[in-house]
Amino acid sequence: MTKSYEQLMEYIDKVMAFQAALTLFEWDAETLAPEESMNYTAKTIGILSNEYFTNLINEDVKALISKLSEENLSVRENAIVKQIKKSYDEMELIPPKEYQAFKELTAKASGIWAKAKKNQNFAEYAPVLDEIITYQKKFAGYRAKANENPYDILLNDFEEGFNTKTLDIFFDKIKKAVIPLLKEVTKKEASIDKAYNYQDYDVTKQKEFCNFLSEYVGFDKAKGVIAESAHPFTMQIHNHDVRITNHFHTNNLESAIFSIIHESGHGIYEMNIDDDLTQTPVGGGTSMGMHESQSRFFENIIGRSESFWLPIYDKLRETYSEQLKDITLEHFIKGINKSKPSLIRTEADELSYPLHVIIRYEIEKMIFNNEITTDELPKVWNQKYEEYLGITPPNDAVGVLQDIHWAGGSFGYFPSYAIGSAIAAQIYYHMAFVMPFDQYLKDGNLSPIREYLKEHIHRFGGIKNTNEILKDMMQEELNADYYVKYLTEKYTKLYGLD
Amino acid sequence: MTKSYEQLMEYIDKVMAFQAALTLFEWDAETLAPEESMNYTAKTIGILSNEYFTNLINEDVKALISKLSEENLSVRENAIVKQIKKSYDEMELIPPKEYQAFKELTAKASGIWAKAKKNQNFAEYAPVLDEIITYQKKFAGYRAKANENPYDILLNDFEEGFNTKTLDIFFDKIKKAVIPLLKEVTKKEASIDKAYNYQDYDVTKQKEFCNFLSEYVGFDKAKGVIAESAHPFTMQIHNHDVRITNHFHTNNLESAIFSIIHESGHGIYEMNIDDDLTQTPVGGGTSMGMHESQSRFFENIIGRSESFWLPIYDKLRETYSEQLKDITLEHFIKGINKSKPSLIRTEADELSYPLHVIIRYEIEKMIFNNEITTDELPKVWNQKYEEYLGITPPNDAVGVLQDIHWAGGSFGYFPSYAIGSAIAAQIYYHMAFVMPFDQYLKDGNLSPIREYLKEHIHRFGGIKNTNEILKDMMQEELNADYYVKYLTEKYTKLYGLD
Repeated sequence: MTKSYEQLMEYIDKVMAFQAALTLFEWDAETLAPEESMNYTAKTIGILSNEYFTNLINEDVKALISKLSEENLSVRENAIVKQIKKSYDEMELIPPKEYQAFKELTAKASGIWAKAKKNQNFAEYAPVLDEIITYQKKFAGYRAKANENPYDILLNDFEEGFNTKTLDIFFDKIKKAVIPLLKEVTKKEASIDKAYNYQDYDVTKQKEFCNFLSEYVGFDKAKGVIAESAHPFTMQIHNHDVRITNHFHTNNLESAIFSIIHESGHGIYEMNIDDDLTQTPVGGGTSMGMHESQSRFFENIIGRSESFWLPIYDKLRETYSEQLKDITLEHFIKGINKSKPSLIRTEADELSYPLHVIIRYEIEKMIFNNEITTDELPKVWNQKYEEYLGITPPNDAVGVLQDIHWAGGSFGYFPSYAIGSAIAAQIYYHMAFVMPFDQYLKDGNLSPIREYLKEHIHRFGGIKNTNEILKDMMQEELNADYYVKYLTEKYTKLYGLD
Repeated sequence: MTKSYEQLMEYIDKVMAFQAALTLFEWDAETLAPEESMNYTAKTIGILSNEYFTNLINEDVKALISKLSEENLSVRENAIVKQIKKSYDEMELIPPKEYQAFKELTAKASGIWAKAKKNQNFAEYAPVLDEIITYQKKFAGYRAKANENPYDILLNDFEEGFNTKTLDIFFDKIKKAVIPLLKEVTKKEASIDKAYNYQDYDVTKQKEFCNFLSEYVGFDKAKGVIAESAHPFTMQIHNHDVRITNHFHTNNLESAIFSIIHESGHGIYEMNIDDDLTQTPVGGGTSMGMHESQSRFFENIIGRSESFWLPIYDKLRETYSEQLKDITLEHFIKGINKSKPSLIRTEADELSYPLHVIIRYEIEKMIFNNEITTDELPKVWNQKYEEYLGITPPNDAVGVLQDIHWAGGSFGYFPSYAIGSAIAAQIYYHMAFVMPFDQYLKDGNLSPIREYLKEHIHRFGGIKNTNEILKDMMQEELNADYYVKYLTEKYTKLYGLD
């Protein structure tokens, strides 16, 4: 460890401590804090955010980063400095006052968005969204090199090395396969009866079963907790304190089940990161896309397979002996995989899901290419839903107003969801080749699967980026072909097509 | 607002933000955080504590405090600066390295204490306790003026203006009245049958009833939350985010009931503090003693009275129709007020409670007067229990090892509990004089009682100290006579003495 590195770490240890505190306040706000608290806690959060910022962005840190670029560092140290430099570069070129104004704008915007959604009235939201877009275009402009597409800057923030060029190819492959496949599937939609899922399911029993499920897939309660919130999410203070939430509906059995498996997947990733990265800037999962790949691997590849349910379906059936009396395992597996084009991304099935993402990707590209005004968003949104999914939103609440992301200033985030699904499929084919994957599931023995993911993905935290991880793991970077193959094989079989 | 005041507030705003974060981490550790988290979160807490310390104790702050002593400040500003000066003075004379070592010692000590208690073996705990005592004597020595008793320094930290001189008089009055009274009561102990309390009480129903109770006494869920922990406590992020906990036992009905009323009392105090004191150093209750007075006022004066239960006992009886079938309101009131000398302070009844405090006060005085060695503590402890309560602890786990306070370095804290009970009784006689107190309880209308407490006590936060509050409220400082009168009247009547 060099002297400069030590000096840099004095700042970074503080930055990480403030981040941990901010994370805990955010967790608390989503799960527990009383209604009136935020009016005052906002002041505390403002001060902690400012301390976070000033300890990260200052002349001292800048000089130390520059000095360290010429020093001999270990792989770990090098990755940490690189990550700090990335955060520094993202922030440095944006004038602090503009950033502050932008933060205040987005803090305000989520309330406006929620109200507009409730009123099904995009016009209420359009002005603030337009301001947010203007800021993001400006910020991306500050950071863009000559001839660089501003949207590419944002995409790269979420997934290092990804841009419109790579993603156009990626999404094009998916679109060409999924749109016709979904049309075929939709014709046979009625062949799977899913009425059982929408009966009355006691919430206390749901909680018990979801608790069992989280442990079954490997979420370690010594390093994590589960709470409730309006929308399920995962958050970590560090790799020994990983927090997930779930939500429960009396009239929907599978919602909580697949949410808990999904969030457990996120949680297991974080818990498996090496301890020598804990509380450093590379102490979390490497990217949004890689994170989604793990949650979706657990939720879809593992959690929606017949082999997974073979040893545990009886337990679920005993829990709800009345409601599932006539539902065989085969029927249940068809039910949890049933596909039907729908309007809401977060409720979409595995097959139609990527189309929801593609629509958002194409619209975001149009926004940053100045090919669309904010006012035109609902019209274009609805046209694309009709074109790709064959349905038109009856109002904007279930259309362009459904996601909170843009209100928070997040553009370039949506592709991560589809990248995650594609990585999950690619990993699946690899793992089914190197280990008796299916047999492990049938035996209720998920530990070798988790260990393999830990060994090749999780433990590295942010030391390697997505494509580096994939290449080291299976000698190939992200390739949408596997995802297309996976969806085609799965749904052809499920619906008895061709 | 003067310029110096503004400059001071820049530091203090940060100090308060770090304190809020530390409070949230503490709350989280007690209620939710996973087992392994603290091994790593300790680093974050260390950094935040250090930021707290360096923003409070530095030459700049010292100079500003001194400057402000000559400036014209508002009452509010003056109280805030005075409070900062008090914190500053407490810390300033202690060498930071020694304080750090002491903090590390106490962090370690609670584990050693818990183990020694489990093993019923004081010898395991004695060495670390001895080190803690040595530090506290040394620290108090740094701060003591010539001829000042070091224990007086600590007593004054918890309750401004109180020392061994005032407390000797205070406790002497109580001792003289309570010891003989308790002897009389103990003779008639069998006259109250309390077997009903120890039957099987469903926890879900307990939670529901306690939820009802907290709202009934006035704990506002828009400004507060209730969770569970091993031992009930209250904590506040600020006056719009007040957190209380409860615990539940299937075989003890009243434990959770009186815990929730007690903690609600603490909580209501914090919630009622004026908004213009929020997130300042005087934004919390003025002292431990005054805080205990409010919790005990709600728990004992209100919560154990027949008038309080008159409108709501039927609800409790319906909740547990089987267990309380034959228990009349009269019987229940006798049961919840039954007195019987016992070994554990936290489980003691209202009458024997002050004797537990007096024993600790007398022992702490001996410690700081160098009249007792650490090794002699169990012997003296047991002697005093035999002398005052007529019972001898069979082992140290239920004797000198029962409290965590000393392991945390808290000496001079215990008297607050008795001061609180005495204030509660004094307030009671005052309020019964100025308003139809009993009738309000019978009508289930607690709001005028709460409003009066808010008007005369709560809203001032730390602007006035205990005796200032009492004097402004009822033209008299703390006077143990009322407490003695209250206990004598209550228990004479309850047991039909003389």
